[in-house]
Amino acid sequence: MQADGAGFEMAIETAVMASGDPAHLVRAGLLDRFHRLRMRSTALTSRLSDEDMGAQTMEDVSPSKWHLAHTSWFWETFLLEPYLPGYEVFDPRFGFLFNSYYEALGERQPRAARGHITRPGIAHVMAYRAHVDGAMERLLETCGEADLERIAALIETGIAHEEQHQELILTDIKHVLSVNPFAQAYSEVLPPPAQPGPAAGWIEHAGGLEDFGAEANGFVFDNEGPRHKAWLAPFALSTHCVTNGEYARFIAEGGYETASLWLSDGWARVQAEGRKAPHYWRGAPGEWREFTLHGEQEMDLSAPVSHLDYFEASAFAEWTGYRLPEEREWELAARQFNAGSARPMTPDGWLHPASADQANLFGGVWQWTRSAYAPYPGYRAQSGALGEYNGKFMCGQFVLKGGSALTPPGHIRASYRNFFPPQAQWQMTGLRLAKDI
Amino acid sequence: MQADGAGFEMAIETAVMASGDPAHLVRAGLLDRFHRLRMRSTALTSRLSDEDMGAQTMEDVSPSKWHLAHTSWFWETFLLEPYLPGYEVFDPRFGFLFNSYYEALGERQPRAARGHITRPGIAHVMAYRAHVDGAMERLLETCGEADLERIAALIETGIAHEEQHQELILTDIKHVLSVNPFAQAYSEVLPPPAQPGPAAGWIEHAGGLEDFGAEANGFVFDNEGPRHKAWLAPFALSTHCVTNGEYARFIAEGGYETASLWLSDGWARVQAEGRKAPHYWRGAPGEWREFTLHGEQEMDLSAPVSHLDYFEASAFAEWTGYRLPEEREWELAARQFNAGSARPMTPDGWLHPASADQANLFGGVWQWTRSAYAPYPGYRAQSGALGEYNGKFMCGQFVLKGGSALTPPGHIRASYRNFFPPQAQWQMTGLRLAKDI
Amino acid sequence: MQADGAGFEMAIETAVMASGDPAHLVRAGLLDRFHRLRMRSTALTSRLSDEDMGAQTMEDVSPSKWHLAHTSWFWETFLLEPYLPGYEVFDPRFGFLFNSYYEALGERQPRAARGHITRPGIAHVMAYRAHVDGAMERLLETCGEADLERIAALIETGIAHEEQHQELILTDIKHVLSVNPFAQAYSEVLPPPAQPGPAAGWIEHAGGLEDFGAEANGFVFDNEGPRHKAWLAPFALSTHCVTNGEYARFIAEGGYETASLWLSDGWARVQAEGRKAPHYWRGAPGEWREFTLHGEQEMDLSAPVSHLDYFEASAFAEWTGYRLPEEREWELAARQFNAGSARPMTPDGWLHPASADQANLFGGVWQWTRSAYAPYPGYRAQSGALGEYNGKFMCGQFVLKGGSALTPPGHIRASYRNFFPPQAQWQMTGLRLAKDI
Amino acid sequence: MQADGAGFEMAIETAVMASGDPAHLVRAGLLDRFHRLRMRSTALTSRLSDEDMGAQTMEDVSPSKWHLAHTSWFWETFLLEPYLPGYEVFDPRFGFLFNSYYEALGERQPRAARGHITRPGIAHVMAYRAHVDGAMERLLETCGEADLERIAALIETGIAHEEQHQELILTDIKHVLSVNPFAQAYSEVLPPPAQPGPAAGWIEHAGGLEDFGAEANGFVFDNEGPRHKAWLAPFALSTHCVTNGEYARFIAEGGYETASLWLSDGWARVQAEGRKAPHYWRGAPGEWREFTLHGEQEMDLSAPVSHLDYFEASAFAEWTGYRLPEEREWELAARQFNAGSARPMTPDGWLHPASADQANLFGGVWQWTRSAYAPYPGYRAQSGALGEYNGKFMCGQFVLKGGSALTPPGHIRASYRNFFPPQAQWQMTGLRLAKDI
Repeated sequence: MQADGAGFEMAIETAVMASGDPAHLVRAGLLDRFHRLRMRSTALTSRLSDEDMGAQTMEDVSPSKWHLAHTSWFWETFLLEPYLPGYEVFDPRFGFLFNSYYEALGERQPRAARGHITRPGIAHVMAYRAHVDGAMERLLETCGEADLERIAALIETGIAHEEQHQELILTDIKHVLSVNPFAQAYSEVLPPPAQPGPAAGWIEHAGGLEDFGAEANGFVFDNEGPRHKAWLAPFALSTHCVTNGEYARFIAEGGYETASLWLSDGWARVQAEGRKAPHYWRGAPGEWREFTLHGEQEMDLSAPVSHLDYFEASAFAEWTGYRLPEEREWELAARQFNAGSARPMTPDGWLHPASADQANLFGGVWQWTRSAYAPYPGYRAQSGALGEYNGKFMCGQFVLKGGSALTPPGHIRASYRNFFPPQAQWQMTGLRLAKDI
Repeated sequence: MQADGAGFEMAIETAVMASGDPAHLVRAGLLDRFHRLRMRSTALTSRLSDEDMGAQTMEDVSPSKWHLAHTSWFWETFLLEPYLPGYEVFDPRFGFLFNSYYEALGERQPRAARGHITRPGIAHVMAYRAHVDGAMERLLETCGEADLERIAALIETGIAHEEQHQELILTDIKHVLSVNPFAQAYSEVLPPPAQPGPAAGWIEHAGGLEDFGAEANGFVFDNEGPRHKAWLAPFALSTHCVTNGEYARFIAEGGYETASLWLSDGWARVQAEGRKAPHYWRGAPGEWREFTLHGEQEMDLSAPVSHLDYFEASAFAEWTGYRLPEEREWELAARQFNAGSARPMTPDGWLHPASADQANLFGGVWQWTRSAYAPYPGYRAQSGALGEYNGKFMCGQFVLKGGSALTPPGHIRASYRNFFPPQAQWQMTGLRLAKDI
Repeated sequence: MQADGAGFEMAIETAVMASGDPAHLVRAGLLDRFHRLRMRSTALTSRLSDEDMGAQTMEDVSPSKWHLAHTSWFWETFLLEPYLPGYEVFDPRFGFLFNSYYEALGERQPRAARGHITRPGIAHVMAYRAHVDGAMERLLETCGEADLERIAALIETGIAHEEQHQELILTDIKHVLSVNPFAQAYSEVLPPPAQPGPAAGWIEHAGGLEDFGAEANGFVFDNEGPRHKAWLAPFALSTHCVTNGEYARFIAEGGYETASLWLSDGWARVQAEGRKAPHYWRGAPGEWREFTLHGEQEMDLSAPVSHLDYFEASAFAEWTGYRLPEEREWELAARQFNAGSARPMTPDGWLHPASADQANLFGGVWQWTRSAYAPYPGYRAQSGALGEYNGKFMCGQFVLKGGSALTPPGHIRASYRNFFPPQAQWQMTGLRLAKDI
Repeated sequence: MQADGAGFEMAIETAVMASGDPAHLVRAGLLDRFHRLRMRSTALTSRLSDEDMGAQTMEDVSPSKWHLAHTSWFWETFLLEPYLPGYEVFDPRFGFLFNSYYEALGERQPRAARGHITRPGIAHVMAYRAHVDGAMERLLETCGEADLERIAALIETGIAHEEQHQELILTDIKHVLSVNPFAQAYSEVLPPPAQPGPAAGWIEHAGGLEDFGAEANGFVFDNEGPRHKAWLAPFALSTHCVTNGEYARFIAEGGYETASLWLSDGWARVQAEGRKAPHYWRGAPGEWREFTLHGEQEMDLSAPVSHLDYFEASAFAEWTGYRLPEEREWELAARQFNAGSARPMTPDGWLHPASADQANLFGGVWQWTRSAYAPYPGYRAQSGALGEYNGKFMCGQFVLKGGSALTPPGHIRASYRNFFPPQAQWQMTGLRLAKDI
């Protein structure tokens, strides 16, 4: 997923419209989902101070306030301006400040300077959200039948978009809270009891000619399609994500000192940064601790390792003699062996991979595949600003499958293609081993 | 002045002690000044949001919150820890976060990451201030006669230090407010009426062998001494600081396109940045406006030009055929022709150079001299952490004389040596022309 | 291909050994090929001054002298040290200077500082070459029957390796000669007469389940295998590479000013560099000229455009409404419709894409595909230093197919996978359009 | 001295003209000096390969070839073009390549890319020199009486300029030869026998009102004047430059680990680079060796330490409790106590500070003063391109006095003001201690 949280497209027919419900029920249903979505976004920031919400502690991180404003700008730009007659933008300067990356929509605040936006303040952004929420209500209540289908499809997109930013709010605030000596906890929830380590095992698949990509029965991002055929050789995926304990062994046995395990670019980074462990690990071998959204915690050795970049995931796989999966291997296994639902993320729950997540292919972490993020056969970006969501990032990134402890439930599906550049460490990313059979 | 606001030393005998007052009056007098000082620091931030106070919009800028905490750390470190028996530091982690540059006092937060300190929050920093204020009261009430002289001298230093940070709070918040499309005003005070442009004129001086540097009759920074002799050739200083109108003419006549006017390093910067006007100028020739602490305002063409870096000041002087003053020329002129008091800065007043400031040699802006910041003959930095204030910055900077619309009155004196590197633009800096006669 | 020219592995059985020739003929045949190879490398530099051969005009470029020394070091390291009893390395310091990127072989000269190696000088490097050549003769004459098979396989690798560096010598010296006002020609050969522009046309293929990768009947690099199945949808490739004329139209119609055509990273580069045309284009629309190894020449509008980076190739394809090929589409078309031999590169010939190259799928330029450079199913890097050739670069690069006017004939085959990062401009790279059918 | 070797101005009346010799003797005398100058420049490169002469191993270093060409361009630009009727420039492209920093003379090769100039080659540059030499002969033989005085003055300038570049040729080639494992010697001359360490002693001076700057009796650079008065307090200078042995003790006693000794900028560099010793020191405490123009040599502990930057010199002085001299203190001492001639530099001699140099105030090294490089009172840069030599560098640099083992004799005088930025390490720079008395 693009760090700006977008990168997608809308289904031609949404599930809602396909349901055959009468229009007034469609309106009511969408409005209800919209309200719940919007409340959850602000709920995610309820524990944060104004200062927490304004800081940008590295270029990839966006302030929470920016996320709250950008998601509102998205509704304003793609729904309200085109479809609500007489709508007036809340503040014309917000287009500059809260456009993420849409070239078609003009100049914008440099990404690295999002932390400089002290004005508008939080209260002002909250007023913006209220203004947009009210207008969205009016839109849903008053739009004509003729527009409803298109509007419903755009709303599905907007919901998916804001949900992506919900995950980013958590991911980014974790970095913000991590960089000073207080190591402040985002949430005071206590860790679940550690489980015994997962038993080793393999999910085998005979490969062959199969269909891949999303089927047209609900909202999906455009990069999940088109549906297409591909041939896979026989393979197996591990039944569990690599655990902290396994990764600690890799460290103890010299993983970070052994050039031959690493991709060339990865080794250069390890050397330049003197890296010795994953990004949020604290302490030292034998007594590892981990910075989490619940503060610094003892390491749960049987939980999935997280916050690996692609280079670390690849080096670990090389060390074991196995390899990273192809994205289509993962999709196939997920479709066949897994009901496809991960532990639902809630702001009141445990916001970190837990040993219990191992029971599920989706596994509590986003899982690096060795597949570069590229268009599926037949893929074409749509025209207009929304066409910038996915296609323009198809270079230099890798696909991740699964979903993490921070991922909203609606984003947990076998066809979902998350993507990040190989050096990304601040995402909740781990791996599952694969092998040829 | 060092951007961290310090860079000084204490007088051996403070004015207070020299007064011959009985000890209880000395204690009461110091406490009263301390209280007023501390209240003014917080008053300066009363118009700011928590987000304004946390942001760092370039490396030179420190967040207001950081200034409030750092000045408290200073009292804690140099007064309370050594002299108040049983004092407990408010939070041992603050030493890391709020030490500015004292190597002798250990590791510290990287300067460029002061904007990442979302915790402690404002309320926490205010509690820190209250904790320190209470302890300072106890110190002054309970310290023995034997320590009082030394403590009084350190308090003078601490007051001067915090006053420097008051100027920096204003200087830095100006940058913070300037970088987004809102161009938010710090204060709603309206501009004073513009005066007619100053009449050209010269203050002449025959030069000769003179004494320079501070005389020992009150608190001064260590870099203002020792008192020493130097020989000056005859010279003249302009009776007014260069005005916005004069500088606008320099621009209109191609100043920023004429390499021969510029120092080599300055020309490289102008080229690299495509610079066309001083930092806070907005608009275009013929319709210049200026960003001020009172928001964006029409340019007062008869007011002193401000926010020039040394290269701009030097190029302007070259263009006129005159030159920048030597620091000792300025000191001599100030001592002889000027009572030495500038318009007092108050948070309720006009926080920008005004045309009326021209009546005064101190002039509403800090004035670049062509004297590199170097030790006076016989200068030795004292030992210990306080010795780091001045000596270690005597390289690559230039001396500025005068004082700006943001300078606390206690820092307006002929011997004062402010200093900044030649590329500094965010300070309220201008120039006064000089010539040989 | 890695800029260091390597990145490969040897076939288990070489064609030579498979021929069934008696051992003395195998020895003689290998020696003959070795001699011709080595002479051609030095012949390529015969027109260059010592200064030309020492300069490094950007980090990607290596000096010709370095190439001549590095290829000798390769023979010394992988053949002579392990297999020639009593061999003494020419100079033990050369291992540091002329190791390209083999972590397993220890520390080495920083890549960006290859131009700092003024000593050894050219004469010294030539003595090194002679020393290695003599020892290789002895090795081939004296090695036992038992080792001959392994040695022959390594010699195949060494030949392929040095041939890659022959292409790099030309590619790199082109950059060196281009960066000063003399625009010195490498060769005085005159351009061939321009041909009429190629007729538009498509090579269609029905797709389906096919075999890909090298078959085991001659030397190939390890990344060309293993042979594996894959499914392709129906597609078509253009019968010609995009021409200079077509690309000039893209420029004229605003290609470099239209954000929506570009990948996000590509657009950022275009903006940051103010790029307006391919790297070696000179002049302006309507009167384009081009810097070539034959000096600055009039643009042949019907010849393939070259020195595009991936972003330019991708933006051009987007502009046409077509797309870049998948690497397997290209391989399939090449196998089916083309005898697979490109115009042989010779130092006495025309070292630039010509309109006549259009007759051939290999086309005079390396052709960007949209396939990220990744391992084929079942690929495993071998162990030891030679295992560093390919696997460790499988991240962030794209596959190119075909071969350029600078490519030695032995590197022109359908299964060959050249690879470069998307921002590489100094390679002779262009594109061929593809579409779904 | 500017790294480009220039930075000066010509005396209004040259010594030659002032001599009252008849014009034909003036012509002959100038021509003779010109010839000897030019021959010595090329002689300095006679031991170098073409590759040595082309390399630029860091931005401050210029290739020897560039120096040979730039000095010729200087004669062409300032003498031949304006004064020799019908003169044709050798190659109009050379103006771009070999202009150092004269903005008034147009665009030029970026400084950091001087090592990219493989064409023109050495032979071409030698032809350029011959072309210029011939034309200079014609100029001196044919110019009218009326022009002779001005031409003679310009020739003095040109001689001084090219002599500065002779010193730079040696300084720069030292860096080039130092950066690879061969540590190639520039000259095979053997080191002179070490002398006993210098006895400690002080040259005392009572200070007072004195005259400074060059007197008008021979060629001097414009920055050496105007002659002016200044007042100095009583001071003393050490009778010897700091030795390698003394500096080794500073290292052994923790100089590089003690923050309080260092200027703030210097400490930041020491930390960032992990510096532990001067730039060309090799080995470790107790067994120091030094890279010199005569290859790597045992350290002569009684010879002056060299290649210190200002920060190292300043920290060393701080460590001793003494200080660096003011430039005027040095000038005064030199005038009073020293005949003013240093060991003459010859390409056949020992090109490194020797213990015997201690007998002389000029001392074998350039000596850092704590005086920032600034205009003397009354200084004005002349108009035109030659006005760019000195004035535009008067910012951020420090004055050095004395002269090094690489300095041509004509540059050894009390009024000479060399200048470099504080971080310069590649110059032959050391220090002499001073104190107040």
